[in-house]
Amino acid sequence: MSGKIIKVVQYGLGPIGSATARHIMEREGVELVGGVDIDQAKTGRDVGEVIGLDSPAGFPVVKDLSRVLERTEADVVLHTTGSFFDLFESQIMEILGAGLDIVSTSEELSFPWLAHPDAAARIDAAARQAGKTVLGTGVNPGFLMDSLPLNLTAICQRVDRIDVTRRMNASLRRGPFQAKIGSGMTVEGFKAKMETGRMGHVGLPESMGMVFHTLGKNLVKYESEVEPVVADFPVSTDYFEIQPGQVRGLKQVARGYTGEGEFMTLTFIAALDETEDGDTILITGKPDLEVKLKGTNGDIATVAIAVNAVRRVFEALPGLVTMRDLPIVTIW
Amino acid sequence: MSGKIIKVVQYGLGPIGSATARHIMEREGVELVGGVDIDQAKTGRDVGEVIGLDSPAGFPVVKDLSRVLERTEADVVLHTTGSFFDLFESQIMEILGAGLDIVSTSEELSFPWLAHPDAAARIDAAARQAGKTVLGTGVNPGFLMDSLPLNLTAICQRVDRIDVTRRMNASLRRGPFQAKIGSGMTVEGFKAKMETGRMGHVGLPESMGMVFHTLGKNLVKYESEVEPVVADFPVSTDYFEIQPGQVRGLKQVARGYTGEGEFMTLTFIAALDETEDGDTILITGKPDLEVKLKGTNGDIATVAIAVNAVRRVFEALPGLVTMRDLPIVTIW
Repeated sequence: MSGKIIKVVQYGLGPIGSATARHIMEREGVELVGGVDIDQAKTGRDVGEVIGLDSPAGFPVVKDLSRVLERTEADVVLHTTGSFFDLFESQIMEILGAGLDIVSTSEELSFPWLAHPDAAARIDAAARQAGKTVLGTGVNPGFLMDSLPLNLTAICQRVDRIDVTRRMNASLRRGPFQAKIGSGMTVEGFKAKMETGRMGHVGLPESMGMVFHTLGKNLVKYESEVEPVVADFPVSTDYFEIQPGQVRGLKQVARGYTGEGEFMTLTFIAALDETEDGDTILITGKPDLEVKLKGTNGDIATVAIAVNAVRRVFEALPGLVTMRDLPIVTIW
Repeated sequence: MSGKIIKVVQYGLGPIGSATARHIMEREGVELVGGVDIDQAKTGRDVGEVIGLDSPAGFPVVKDLSRVLERTEADVVLHTTGSFFDLFESQIMEILGAGLDIVSTSEELSFPWLAHPDAAARIDAAARQAGKTVLGTGVNPGFLMDSLPLNLTAICQRVDRIDVTRRMNASLRRGPFQAKIGSGMTVEGFKAKMETGRMGHVGLPESMGMVFHTLGKNLVKYESEVEPVVADFPVSTDYFEIQPGQVRGLKQVARGYTGEGEFMTLTFIAALDETEDGDTILITGKPDLEVKLKGTNGDIATVAIAVNAVRRVFEALPGLVTMRDLPIVTIW
């Protein structure tokens, strides 16, 4: 709305962070003023080169945010590093210490009040003390399975159940994403990897927590299960050759219960050559709503919503906020 | 979120206002404390009886809001009277003068800054002086053709065009609605009534204005046309018997242009026995998004969003706000 150009530092220059930095450079209203990454293969090189541009940005990737701020003023940090609190909490504190607003794509930050209430309270307190705003966002968590269904309940007089299904044809996605969902593994290998912990999509408890809390419901039980999607036909992508019987992706189902029973079910399916690509939000109540979305490409959408949120975070009151606390995030 | 019960006065007890009042009475977190209507056939009668309840509300319909406030405290007025500024502006000023927040379903109030900037500025100034909030909302305008498409742009890196089509089977709606869309008229009669002015759906310029303004686009041209939908088969409803050649509804198309050409097209079709009932939002850009909604019943949804907005308005900062200024409205 205003003519102010918001100065953004990109913190984390992996695939998503590089895409975000490139998008900042092509958007009006924001200016990329710095790049931070701990990877020694990147530090010291020009940011433009690291993020894959033909022309230099004119400043190098640095390991410490403070080095950026010696050179330039900044308003907002766009933070795209890890999914989990044990990695990112100290980074968030560092950024708040430098006195900057934060938009982060860290999944566990999108609604941390359920799974990490103590860490959330620490970040909220630090943000208020710094007079700055911290937002975790993304397409999922942050939009498709939480803030968008919440927005749809605006036209409901009663909501008895919410079901969201995201079905992704992973053949259209990056190689690392195809690997992450188990493509090419044996069923035994998939299950063994699951035993070690962090397999599957991150963010379903955060989406569930945001919806329950906003609707004033008590989450008395949360269940989540991941199972392999096994190929019954050969699959070929730029990155994988899959034989029948091998894993071509995963299906994850999370269920949230109130004292009265199951209230919300989130189903996440990401598999190579998955024929239906799209999202469905079903709200059972008065009225019954069925909403189907096509085209919500995860990589494009995550970059978009992170950059689009910069304006709202820049304008927001201090504290740790979530997507349900801000005015509607839009392109601008 | 908080335990505060918000005390609501229903201002306007026509079909929508009566439905809103009934819904307030069945919801937690809000309490109906008064009913206002100028209709002498209603004033003096118990509000419960007027809105169609079996049991009395315990207070009468009154002509003046001040009479309600002699009897009880109140927080928010839910205002459902007319669509147009020339009717409702004095009512809004009266309510602000009484020191109450306002949720209104008046279409022209949903985004008044384009068509009625002076009146909007007067209301905004009065609201700030009173320390109260004024919101115009509804399913359309207020949601399907403006704040929801805006919310969907959150996951877009670029938006080239927005197309929204709302297709309603008016056979499922109230008799007055069926009449309002021209059901049973001759084509000549329909066109003659159009000449007299206010025929067709109210609110398309407001939706267009909210989207253009929020996206920072200049609305250089606005076009709107209404045409009859003519029956080529006999249609029978509880209220109308239509022969082939008679009008069974209307189609309205609004187009908004930037300096670069047509950017937004809103199509509103409401007709008896319209087979496809649903809404489609197409966003052309990066990515292309297609969103289809089923079940967005206008009467249920309008009542829902008005009551659901009460919490946000009660919590909001003073002034005249629109749906794109508040945190996401949800059921609660």
